[in-house]
Amino acid sequence: MKILVLGGDGFCGWPTALHLSAHGYDVTIVDNLIRRAIDAELDVQSLTPIRSIDERLSLWKEKSGHRIKFKNIDIAHNYHALIEALKEADPDAIVHFAEQRAAPYSMKSPRHKRYTVENNILGTHNLLCALVEANLDTHLVHLGTMGVYGYAGGRPIPEGYLTVTLPHGETQEIVHPYSPGSVYHATKCLDNVLFHFYNRNDGLRVTDLHQGIVWGTQTKETAIDPGLVNRFDYDGDYGTVLNRFLVEAAVGHPLTVHGTGGQTRAFIHITDTVQCVRLAIENPPAPADRVRILNQMTEVHRVRDLAKMVSETTGADIAYVENPRLEADENELLVENQGLQRLGLVPVSLQDGLMQEVLDVAERWRDRVDLAKIPCTSKWRSQPKPGESAMETAAE
Amino acid sequence: MKILVLGGDGFCGWPTALHLSAHGYDVTIVDNLIRRAIDAELDVQSLTPIRSIDERLSLWKEKSGHRIKFKNIDIAHNYHALIEALKEADPDAIVHFAEQRAAPYSMKSPRHKRYTVENNILGTHNLLCALVEANLDTHLVHLGTMGVYGYAGGRPIPEGYLTVTLPHGETQEIVHPYSPGSVYHATKCLDNVLFHFYNRNDGLRVTDLHQGIVWGTQTKETAIDPGLVNRFDYDGDYGTVLNRFLVEAAVGHPLTVHGTGGQTRAFIHITDTVQCVRLAIENPPAPADRVRILNQMTEVHRVRDLAKMVSETTGADIAYVENPRLEADENELLVENQGLQRLGLVPVSLQDGLMQEVLDVAERWRDRVDLAKIPCTSKWRSQPKPGESAMETAAE
Repeated sequence: MKILVLGGDGFCGWPTALHLSAHGYDVTIVDNLIRRAIDAELDVQSLTPIRSIDERLSLWKEKSGHRIKFKNIDIAHNYHALIEALKEADPDAIVHFAEQRAAPYSMKSPRHKRYTVENNILGTHNLLCALVEANLDTHLVHLGTMGVYGYAGGRPIPEGYLTVTLPHGETQEIVHPYSPGSVYHATKCLDNVLFHFYNRNDGLRVTDLHQGIVWGTQTKETAIDPGLVNRFDYDGDYGTVLNRFLVEAAVGHPLTVHGTGGQTRAFIHITDTVQCVRLAIENPPAPADRVRILNQMTEVHRVRDLAKMVSETTGADIAYVENPRLEADENELLVENQGLQRLGLVPVSLQDGLMQEVLDVAERWRDRVDLAKIPCTSKWRSQPKPGESAMETAAE
Repeated sequence: MKILVLGGDGFCGWPTALHLSAHGYDVTIVDNLIRRAIDAELDVQSLTPIRSIDERLSLWKEKSGHRIKFKNIDIAHNYHALIEALKEADPDAIVHFAEQRAAPYSMKSPRHKRYTVENNILGTHNLLCALVEANLDTHLVHLGTMGVYGYAGGRPIPEGYLTVTLPHGETQEIVHPYSPGSVYHATKCLDNVLFHFYNRNDGLRVTDLHQGIVWGTQTKETAIDPGLVNRFDYDGDYGTVLNRFLVEAAVGHPLTVHGTGGQTRAFIHITDTVQCVRLAIENPPAPADRVRILNQMTEVHRVRDLAKMVSETTGADIAYVENPRLEADENELLVENQGLQRLGLVPVSLQDGLMQEVLDVAERWRDRVDLAKIPCTSKWRSQPKPGESAMETAAE
């Protein structure tokens, strides 16, 4: 079975490519290596010393006996190369990670907002358009986010569709309304609209995995050799909350909780991410199926509870800092996630000792941590809203 | 009061710019003149002989005494020029027509799909981003389409928001779910998602006018002099249904009804379009308001009834041809459109003798009609869906 992994050099993409390769799939990574260039732009580096893509792939061949091919293509701007790659590979499935994936980065400046929209929307639309043009019956597995619905609801978030009663009493199943909290999240909503259209119009088979916040570093496959290590981000833009806490603890930095830490979020460990993608591929939608949406998360935690848990384990202090995001101080979150479990996912949990693995990684590479890069410097809004004082903006 | 009209050289933009100028507004047109380039691409021309933008504007100055300024900017690709224009103009309102607006054109080929997404989404997002960067409290009036909701409902389409009852009995007002019927319509859904985000995050004031199918040619202002005439499209890509019938009648061509003609659509005359835009500008949302969505249409007709009406008036034959769109043969359409009427719109109707004006225009310029350009050659899908025979595709 042939698989293209778009964005296969990144934090989720690399361990997914290895996992699929280890399971006997014929994997080709398509990536323009932009994530490495963004490290350079932000003057930051992965906590773990990752190798070049060529070194990674040679080493994987040597250690596993499996060959992963690589194509350097910017799918947002090189449609010709993309469609040639699709025709050449004729893949059974495509895993699409090739999007700018950090909300703070997407809000950093006008340039970053515009880059995120251009890269994510043109990339996704080129892919959909190319699948139709090449007349391929390929299953597209896209990494979306739980965040497309916002976090204001308080009622369970279903898997993509919501049954409602209309004013005249009729019951109807609708696509769950969007409520993105950043330009990044907005691009994932736009992707979703495009999936529904291409599914209806052209019969494209699409699974949109609405993922929670990923934590952890290593998977079974990346741990085979130090040269296969996964990237690990701890900086204010790309470092996700739990991983950031664990690095902060390892280097003796207070755990930086944004606002009151009352935000409740959905989490998943990277080892579960790669399982979920494989399960989605192995159980594709049927040709006539609508877009399949699965909530790819395994547990829900309040941010300040996570901080307390890490603090209790490590003795680290907790610092409450200004929240760069515009969001409610406190929210509840209930998520339906039976879909992937029905496909066979047996999730790991925060209680399974996996926090120690991340702490070990952070300890091992603590000399590579640049403390100045830890705070989030992106602002969701740089000016007060019209009619609002600057103080209100800061307080929101 | 200063107004930027983006796309002010086009079919809706030009009469709107003149109408606002005639009402004393200080108007600047921003346009990259791409619509004229598309005429060249399609080897077709406006039925009416339109003048160059410079000639139009000189003539307007001469006839009306009002000056309209012009800037040639591609807002999707020249962010720098866009933001400079915004800062220089410091407009009270922006009317945004600068999008590729034909569904058949958007489905013509992969290149046309990709152009429509790139032009419409990057243009709209650049505009939103620039308004925030320039810190302008400008009211953005965007031309959307009724078609963002699809035509399958059978229940009244409200103005953007829908009150539903959730499974647990809670009542909530949601953004009306999208169901775009073409890549063009999908881009208007994406715009809408972006408006909601920038409204919530940055307090941008946005009115999204969900317009029906525009018919007619001239407005009071474009009729002042032949050199101010509005463009008029009758070709298979840009010619909208009623205008196309009237041209067909004028040249003795059968009225080409797609499928059974059972499609029910919303209509508005161009003279009402320009009024609606002015009314939206003169009644802006308050700073804290959510995105305002108004259905900009005045009457609903079934396509085959329109054909019969034109046939009875003109004696033209009716030809039922294959429908290039993938849609239901027959649909009902109910639309709530009280918003603009509450703002003061007194609509004209098909019964008001305005069809004769279009027939006169068509008669006057019948020698310019290229009969070969009348059929719609775009196909919504060029291959059968996976698992479907070619015959089923053709029959759908």
